Amino acid sequence: MSKFKSYMELALAEAMIAARREEVPVGAVIVNEHGETVAKSGNRIRELKDPTAHAEILAIREACTKLKSERLVGHHIYVTLQPCKMCLQAIINARLERLYYGAPDTSNAQFDPYNIENGGKIQGSSLEVYPNIHEYDSSDLIKKFFNERR
Amino acid sequence: MSKFKSYMELALAEAMIAARREEVPVGAVIVNEHGETVAKSGNRIRELKDPTAHAEILAIREACTKLKSERLVGHHIYVTLQPCKMCLQAIINARLERLYYGAPDTSNAQFDPYNIENGGKIQGSSLEVYPNIHEYDSSDLIKKFFNERR
Repeated sequence: MSKFKSYMELALAEAMIAARREEVPVGAVIVNEHGETVAKSGNRIRELKDPTAHAEILAIREACTKLKSERLVGHHIYVTLQPCKMCLQAIINARLERLYYGAPDTSNAQFDPYNIENGGKIQGSSLEVYPNIHEYDSSDLIKKFFNERR
Repeated sequence: MSKFKSYMELALAEAMIAARREEVPVGAVIVNEHGETVAKSGNRIRELKDPTAHAEILAIREACTKLKSERLVGHHIYVTLQPCKMCLQAIINARLERLYYGAPDTSNAQFDPYNIENGGKIQGSSLEVYPNIHEYDSSDLIKKFFNERR
């Protein structure tokens, strides 16, 4: 199995743990230039009563605290779902080098000024995007979560 | 002086305190439906080594902690500078009712999918935007900060 798929599996595990906490199942993992996992998190919006506590934001904050730096140059982030605009801009602000994500978020994509679903380099930033990694697992997890609650 | 100008002055005071900490001078204030200030913050990116520690995000987190809720329905936020996409989406996610902001951010505006510089209701959200409140004071503060450091 390719390396980036195994990081996405770690992110998927975080998403599954989030679902057990009754949070929308999204997980994120940040990996450094040596391939070491420096942070991982799931959604904690309800638990923390914090609308900014998306998996990506929590992972970025955890990695920055560990590295004592507000920039994550050379680092990659793996997210099970296409990030919302808040998280995408946080990923850009943090100077992350690569974003790998799983399922597309169609509700979000229609307003996406960067067209990240096409992948590639984001203009005016240091970020490259790789969409649709383990897409079906991430997508199934989200669908199952909402179907069980409808 | 109109009420919303005095809240913006509180936000400007936070921005000035941020400048003294060597942070880009941006301040934010959140006010509830009774006109009470529930949170205020300046930028703390460098101090906290956190790329998400923009004034708006910190004020939202502080208000949500106080209210024990991840939603700030009926609340208004005053920000000295046009929010970046991360903060704008956080403001929308938090269900804030109104955003008043000071100076436009021309670097940010060109990718703004919501065209917030025109003001008015943001489509698909509960947010209304009021730009250019105390615009010149906010703008002067930012210009002075960067000129002194060039």
